[in-house]
Amino acid sequence: MKLDDIYGPVRDDLRLVESRLLEETASLGEADSGATAQVVNAGGKRLRPALLLMAAKACSYSGERSISLATAVELVHTASLIHDDIIDDASSRRGVPSVNCSAGNALSVLMGDYVYSKVMAIVVEDGDVEILRCVARATGRMVQGELLQIGCLKDATTSEEKYLAIIAGKTAALLSCACRVGAMLREPGNGQVEVLSEYGSNFGMAFQITDDVLDLTGEEERTGKALGSDIREGRLTLPFIRAMSVADSKDRKRMGEAFTNGGAEGAELCRIREMVEHYRGIEYSLDKAKEYSRACREKLEAVDESESRDSLALLADYVVGRIC
Amino acid sequence: MKLDDIYGPVRDDLRLVESRLLEETASLGEADSGATAQVVNAGGKRLRPALLLMAAKACSYSGERSISLATAVELVHTASLIHDDIIDDASSRRGVPSVNCSAGNALSVLMGDYVYSKVMAIVVEDGDVEILRCVARATGRMVQGELLQIGCLKDATTSEEKYLAIIAGKTAALLSCACRVGAMLREPGNGQVEVLSEYGSNFGMAFQITDDVLDLTGEEERTGKALGSDIREGRLTLPFIRAMSVADSKDRKRMGEAFTNGGAEGAELCRIREMVEHYRGIEYSLDKAKEYSRACREKLEAVDESESRDSLALLADYVVGRIC
Repeated sequence: MKLDDIYGPVRDDLRLVESRLLEETASLGEADSGATAQVVNAGGKRLRPALLLMAAKACSYSGERSISLATAVELVHTASLIHDDIIDDASSRRGVPSVNCSAGNALSVLMGDYVYSKVMAIVVEDGDVEILRCVARATGRMVQGELLQIGCLKDATTSEEKYLAIIAGKTAALLSCACRVGAMLREPGNGQVEVLSEYGSNFGMAFQITDDVLDLTGEEERTGKALGSDIREGRLTLPFIRAMSVADSKDRKRMGEAFTNGGAEGAELCRIREMVEHYRGIEYSLDKAKEYSRACREKLEAVDESESRDSLALLADYVVGRIC
Repeated sequence: MKLDDIYGPVRDDLRLVESRLLEETASLGEADSGATAQVVNAGGKRLRPALLLMAAKACSYSGERSISLATAVELVHTASLIHDDIIDDASSRRGVPSVNCSAGNALSVLMGDYVYSKVMAIVVEDGDVEILRCVARATGRMVQGELLQIGCLKDATTSEEKYLAIIAGKTAALLSCACRVGAMLREPGNGQVEVLSEYGSNFGMAFQITDDVLDLTGEEERTGKALGSDIREGRLTLPFIRAMSVADSKDRKRMGEAFTNGGAEGAELCRIREMVEHYRGIEYSLDKAKEYSRACREKLEAVDESESRDSLALLADYVVGRIC
């Protein structure tokens, strides 16, 4: 099944979000030579706005607030991508030159800040303090996750537990926030806000672990980034962590060294991939991702039947199915 | 008169802000090796919280919300300083190593983001959507000012008008916001919110222009930064802009070249200083700063008499008097 089909129930709303995103970033044109708009327009999967819109619809919300709030969560993601590019010193993002590459770190830091300030402005305009609290908390948790990640950079001894804490922050927090905010718009008062928020957390974990696997197995054309770039830049991924934890001491030492040396050389990256394969790190990770995906489906059992609920269920399959 | 004396009516509150600042940044300790706390603790003048507290008191507010909101505006300033250090590639700030120097750009960008998220959390906790709007708008305007500034970097032909727009954003917006939020806490309903907000804008202009002058005339020990560093890094200052606008074409060309070349060489910086002196750029700028300072006093005429109002008046003198 294609993403576009899954998005069916919110397709029209997503189009409105798309124009709103254009609007919000167009004003930056002069200052950044359109670099931010480029990042926004390069697309991406729009998972966050789609989740927010679906959660809202699954709770029978039918107003217009979901459009601006969906725009806001996508802009949080955009701002974090722009800042990530400084952090990763990345040279491309979503297949187009990253802001920091085309305009320098100075502009990147400001463009990210500006996009964050747009987020605040949009959510303030909406006017619900609880939603503001949710977005503020998710933003804080994302940054904490990134900070944890930096603390573990190139540290091959990082535990799976710590890894899970990292991705819960850097990835799952905002996806969960998107679902929660969508549900809050209607507040059906039967616990669906919590349920959908947990759906989002599990979705985020499944999504990030799958992304980790794609770093080693994906096609560069589809993922939009070079194979093995997480490993090369010293970012921990679950397949690697798993292989490290079950490897014999000799192999663990070799993997650790290759990783710490940055896997910059092709030979080191190859060695890591061989080890991960040998110790079945990919299979382990895919199983984990599927567990989280199953948890998503379980959460949805407490949500009333609707087209949007079905889409949320399909999306939870899709996110781990990208692999197959 | 010393700053500490002017701060008299809010001295106790400022102490509470000081501990709250420590608290809010202590949690970052592990992640950034205390670098952010170091920036916060290195002091600075605490103008923003002082203004907020004085404006609140001048409007007869006596509750506790002013403490957390004063902490929030100082944290906006802190976050922007941390990000500025990436922008300026600065090696020190307030006399201690800057975050980006001690921990790298990656950490700086995240620490700044984290501090911004703390700001949002504090203001959301306070719960007043109008105050959130004010802080969000000020943050956006600060970034816009910085973006404008980057667009004019090393452009010796920048007009005074554009310069004023830059500093209205990068400096005056937050100082004005601090005063406005203070006044909003009581909302006396007699226009004092607007009046104090305008006091803050004028204060910001006076403050920044004086800072520009100090870049050429200050003592490095007191300003905490190397003499001429604005010029050297291609940032426009009013004394320079004024001299450019009244210089004869030959001198204008020489100044422009020296500026665009970055004033990196001592000789070029000297040439610029000579020209600024010759064309009386310092005097012109000080006059401007004093005009803004007078406007501050005028605004205060619409505010009821109080110790805090007197302090606001003294502060408007102090800010331009730093020179003499």
